[in-house]
Order: sequence, then structure tokens, then C-alpha cells
Amino acid sequence: MYAAIAREVIGRCRSLAAHSEEPGFTTRTFLSGSMRKVHADMSAWMAAAGMSVGVDPVGNLRGVYAGASAGARRLLIGSHLDTVPHAGAFDGVLGVVMGVALVESLRGRRFPFSIEVVGFSEEEGVRFGVPFIGSRALVGEVDDALLAVKDANGMSVADAIGAFGLDPSRVSDARAESNPLGYLEFHIEQGPALDAAHRPLAVVDRISGRSYADATFIGAAGHAGTTPMDSRRDAVAGAAEWIGRVEEFARRTPGLVSTVGQVDAMPGAANVIAGRCRASLDVRHGEDAIRTAAIDHLQSLARDMSARRGLTLDWSVRLDQPTTPMSPSLVAMLDRAVEKTGAPRTIMSSGAGHDAMILAPHMPAAMLFIRTPGGVSHHPDESVMEGDVAMALAAGANFLDELAASLDG
Amino acid sequence: MYAAIAREVIGRCRSLAAHSEEPGFTTRTFLSGSMRKVHADMSAWMAAAGMSVGVDPVGNLRGVYAGASAGARRLLIGSHLDTVPHAGAFDGVLGVVMGVALVESLRGRRFPFSIEVVGFSEEEGVRFGVPFIGSRALVGEVDDALLAVKDANGMSVADAIGAFGLDPSRVSDARAESNPLGYLEFHIEQGPALDAAHRPLAVVDRISGRSYADATFIGAAGHAGTTPMDSRRDAVAGAAEWIGRVEEFARRTPGLVSTVGQVDAMPGAANVIAGRCRASLDVRHGEDAIRTAAIDHLQSLARDMSARRGLTLDWSVRLDQPTTPMSPSLVAMLDRAVEKTGAPRTIMSSGAGHDAMILAPHMPAAMLFIRTPGGVSHHPDESVMEGDVAMALAAGANFLDELAASLDG
Repeated sequence: MYAAIAREVIGRCRSLAAHSEEPGFTTRTFLSGSMRKVHADMSAWMAAAGMSVGVDPVGNLRGVYAGASAGARRLLIGSHLDTVPHAGAFDGVLGVVMGVALVESLRGRRFPFSIEVVGFSEEEGVRFGVPFIGSRALVGEVDDALLAVKDANGMSVADAIGAFGLDPSRVSDARAESNPLGYLEFHIEQGPALDAAHRPLAVVDRISGRSYADATFIGAAGHAGTTPMDSRRDAVAGAAEWIGRVEEFARRTPGLVSTVGQVDAMPGAANVIAGRCRASLDVRHGEDAIRTAAIDHLQSLARDMSARRGLTLDWSVRLDQPTTPMSPSLVAMLDRAVEKTGAPRTIMSSGAGHDAMILAPHMPAAMLFIRTPGGVSHHPDESVMEGDVAMALAAGANFLDELAASLDG
Repeated sequence: MYAAIAREVIGRCRSLAAHSEEPGFTTRTFLSGSMRKVHADMSAWMAAAGMSVGVDPVGNLRGVYAGASAGARRLLIGSHLDTVPHAGAFDGVLGVVMGVALVESLRGRRFPFSIEVVGFSEEEGVRFGVPFIGSRALVGEVDDALLAVKDANGMSVADAIGAFGLDPSRVSDARAESNPLGYLEFHIEQGPALDAAHRPLAVVDRISGRSYADATFIGAAGHAGTTPMDSRRDAVAGAAEWIGRVEEFARRTPGLVSTVGQVDAMPGAANVIAGRCRASLDVRHGEDAIRTAAIDHLQSLARDMSARRGLTLDWSVRLDQPTTPMSPSLVAMLDRAVEKTGAPRTIMSSGAGHDAMILAPHMPAAMLFIRTPGGVSHHPDESVMEGDVAMALAAGANFLDELAASLDG
């Protein structure tokens, strides 16, 4: 049964990928014009599945499938509809389309809870440099400061909301209904772990904590032709040595991932020794103690190395996000739901942040990861396998049954 | 006698530094409005020294002090009048001001050669990304392709010449008079070698060859949170390892300087493993064989290291400029001229390119370096010491006598 639905789900995701700001690519940032087309298609599918549909004041698309009784509590199923530039068709979108497909597959059957499928308007942080605007609104965390943040064209979040035809003064109306049963998110893994282990699905038990810091090495700019090697205080050479140590340290610390993804050399001319070099550092681990110890160690490495090279170090912490546990009871329920499909049971932590991370402190949350072939994501080649999606849908249906049973019990 | 002239020379350089495109800094690019003010001041000094003054079609300021006889051959003395952004007061300008001061100090005394002081309009390459436009014109190397090069505002070299009130169709008129006696350039060292050796002056015997290449490491972009360390093909980590090897190799190769001054990581986001990283490489040495062997070695290091890391390497040679020898006879003459001042004799190669490098293939050329305190150049703190400038002027006067004697002989 779920094979045909999975095929339809994948087809829908691929058709939504055509709604883009950029011809030939899938690029869909917060409240861009292409998001209207996604809303139109999704709304039609939601309505056909028997849901009442609306767009909240931050642009989240919200479809409600009523429960068996009027006062029924609510289960949220969601993910995001925005994309990174030159994205694939499945990151985020798959979770929303699967939520609607799951409701559609009920063919009018009612549960002792209502189901709200949420297509978050913003998760990637591309347009405003601030991620999770959609899910933040559901938990009341879109404040005036966030509304005032401007994009590259000087347009604020509030202006963008207004330009989309929504009322930024009413963002508090986007809050989730009180006392929800929980939040369930289907999402592609976006990493190679499941593919490498030949497993279709994983239940996420936590979202790894993340630290992000900028290490700026400050030396002395100088002429590349006239400054002997032993007179140099070369900021790029210092940064390069440190980047090597960062990689080496992460390689020998199990579960730790460390990334230097940005390097800015200043003045940045081929014939000038760099006087400053900023390197970003992203460190993640499922255990907060290991992550914070790693950050401390990498900072002191940078400091010692700078001192030895006659450089000074400017260390600036940009983010210190603790690990977010998923709800143990929902994780157990989702694990049983996967087990019933016959798929191998897999529990893993998520190295990437997701909307579930924002909702988890406010309601029980759980996530189901779907294998990402080759770990390829944030790229047009991003894909999913039909059998995996079918298995995830089956697990989702089992989860609804489990949840219903738990309320009866 | 030369102490007072040196004081005047330094004062003139500092007063010219006020002619800038940027208030509070000295920034004077090719044919900018501030160059007119420099021409006005310099022309007045040239005229007072008994020179006939003109501006050639690429904007070089040229003052001629006639020789004892009408058919006298010509000695050129010059340097450049443009600056880098946020420059000091002496790079380039000092050499032109010293040339005029030297002529002024003759008080009408004539030599069996005429003296032409040239203030080159462009040496730094700031505005058009192409250096030496002024000196190239003197040797007939400003062609239509160069005239068509555009600045950041889309204005071509030809347009800039026209906008300054000059005629770009007449650039060939800027060629130096045929059969010149030679070219002499006074210039600050711009490096720390003389300062470290406690020496005021050095005769330059060659301008070191320079290689410039771009090494682009190509791996696979990936998610910083979801890609395990052992699944990464991280272009920044690869570039960093190589930059460390570049530094290490240069440190143990006497006389070699190697610089990575530009690093561009792509996509360049803190939470994305870089899929590409371009690093610039500038390598210089006074011996071409050592330089080219070094470049070959550093390229094969990059290639081996890329192979080991699953990266591919794109190696692009941007410049391969051989060492330019100065004229042995003028170097010997200048060395004797320095010796007569009582200053310690020092011969060195120049790690930086200078106008002399462009003229040397076309006429005998020589350069005299003046100590740069702390090696600080291309910076507002750039300075010279009055005693050093006085000694350089004395050496210059001795050089004129030597040259006159050589013609008599």
C-alpha cells in the first residue's frame, strides 16, 4: 500500500522543487514569491486529504485534520518548505508532503487526537541569517528584535511578512495550540551514516549540541617579496596550522565533528602577507561535556600556537547550543512503530539542527530519519529511495496507532 | 650639505602625501584627481631646479635638465607617484623627489648628459589590476589590450587617460628617448633587511623572479553536522595542510620567500564543509632555478596531498617572471658612489618589483635602496631616516660624477 503513496510523495516533492526563485535550480527562501506556489499546491493536497488549511502570520502553512471528538488534543507533524540555494527536492519538503500523505492515507479515519501538518516557512536561515523563524513562531520566540532583522536588500522580517500579505503585528497568533500531544518530524538524514550501514530509517534520540566560534589570528601584514620568512607574523600560516590541528583532534575523538568552513584572509592579496585571518569553527557532539571540552581544547591550541608565532588570537563565541533530547516516550513509541514495519531498528543522534530542536523544549518531540543515498544533501542530486519512504510512511501510520492506543490506555 | 636637502626631501614627500583620494589617508591611484595636485607641486620644484616639464600621454610627469651640449645622451632618474591604498609617504614618491632634489643641488652645473626625472603615473596596479602602466609606456609596452582593461567602475585605461585630459591615441609618444645612458631609481627597501643589518643603503643587483600560481583544492561540500570526519573530502583542510608545507619548505630554503595571501573557501559557510578552496601562492628568489624548482616541488606536494585526501587539484600559473638583472656596469658605478660616501657597501636583490624591472631589458638600469625602519611599508607608518636620505643623495651626486667621468674617459 505505501509503495504507491511513496511514489506519489516523491513525485510531489519533485514537482514542488520547480517552484524556485532561480531558474534551473531549487532556491526558495523565506516568503519568496515561489513559496506562494508551494502553498497553492500543498493547500490543494491538504484540502483533498480532508484538512482545513490556513497560513499563519509568519507564513507557516498549517492544515488541521480533526480528531474523533471536538476537544481532542493535537499531534503536530511538520518540517520546513524553504530551501538552501541550489537545493535538492527533499530536505524539509519531504516531511511536510509525507505528513499530508499520511493523513490522506487515513481516508477519513479519525483518531482520538487531531493532526496538524505544519509546513514551516523558514528553517534554513538563508534570507535573514537567522534560522527556524517558522518553528520559533510556534513557540512564541519571534520577538521584535527578530522582526527587525534585515535581509541583504535592507528589508526587515516584518516588512517581508507584510509584503507577503500577512500581518507582522499578529505573529503571536502563530503559536501552537496549548497542550499538544507532541511533534513528529520526518526528515532525510542528510548524512552518509544510514547509507553506509545499509539501513533505511533511524529514530533520532537527540539533536547534537553545536558550538560555533570565530578564531581570528592577528599578525602583521607585510610585503610578500621583501619580508624574509623568519621576520614574518603571517596570519594565514597561523590559521592553517591550527586548521590542521582541529582536523587531527576531531579525527581521534569518537563522534566529534569539527569544521572550518570559512577562511577570510586580510587584506587578501596574493602579494601581501596576511595581517589577519579569521577561521570559523563548528563543533558538534551528542554529549555536551565532550563538545565543550573540545572547544576549550581547540581554543587553547589556537592560543598557544599564536603565542609561539607572535600572533594574537581573537576568539569569539557565536553559538553554544546544548544537545536537545527528543522525548523518551515518543522515541520509544517511534522505535516500536519502526520495529513493526520489519525494518531494522536504529537510534541515532542528529548532527544537524531541525525544527524539532526548537519545538522539543515546549512539547514532546520525535524525529524519523530517512536514508540519504551517498549522504548527498543541500545539492540538486539529493535523493531518497522509494522503499525507504514507504517504510517511513508505514512507521508513521504505526506511530499514529500507537499514539491512539496510548490515549485509550 | 645633503642633510638640509634630505630634510627638504622628506618634507616634500610628507606634503605630497596629503594629496589623496581618501581623507585621512594617502591613497592615490592612476590618474586620480589627487595626482593633478602632485603634478602641480612637483612641476614647480622641477621648474625651480631648471628643468623643462611636461606630462606624457599616460600621465607620467617628465622633467628634463639639459646636458652640457645639445646632442647629449640622457640619464633617466625616476620612480612612481601613485600609491597603494592607505599608503605611507615614501614608497615611489621619494625616488622622484630625490631625483629633482639632486638636480636642484647641481645649481645649474651641467654634465655631458642630460637628466630626465620621471614620475611614473602608475606602478602599483591598484586601479586596473595591471601594474607598471607608467614605465611600460616608456618602453612601448602599452598596447590596445592594456588600454582596454577596465577598472571596477567599468572605465578603461584609455577612458581614464582621456578623462585626465590626455590623448590615449598618442601613448607611443611616451616612449623614452632612444639610446639613453641608463635609468637610476632611488627607492625605499620596503623590507626589514637593511634595518636588521644596521645599514643605510644597498645597491640592488637584481630584481628577484616571481612566480604566482593559484592552487585550488576540490573536494566535496557537505553538512558540517552530519558528515563523519572519515567521510569528508574537505577542501579547506587540504589547503591548510598544504599551506603549512609551503611555509615549512620556504623556511628551510635560504633566500626563498613563499606566501599564501589569499584563501577563498567555497561555499564559505561556517556550517558547510568546503567543497573548493583556492589558495594563492607567491614564490620569489634571486636565482630562477631555485624558484622554478620550488614551484615544481610545491605543486607536487599539493598533488600528492590531494590524492591522499581524495581531493583533486587545479593548478593555475598566473605569473612566471624571471629574475631581472640590473646593469653590471651601473651597479659597479653605484657601488663605488656609495663607497665614496663612507657608507658600508651592501649589494642585495630586490624581492619586490619596481619600475627598474620594466626598463632594465631596454636600457642599463640600477637601483639604490634606502633603509626602511622596521621594514614597515604600504602603511601610514612607513618612514625613512634623514641621515639615510642624505647619504643616498650624496651617493647619487657621486654617481653623476662617475657617469660623467666614464663618458669623458
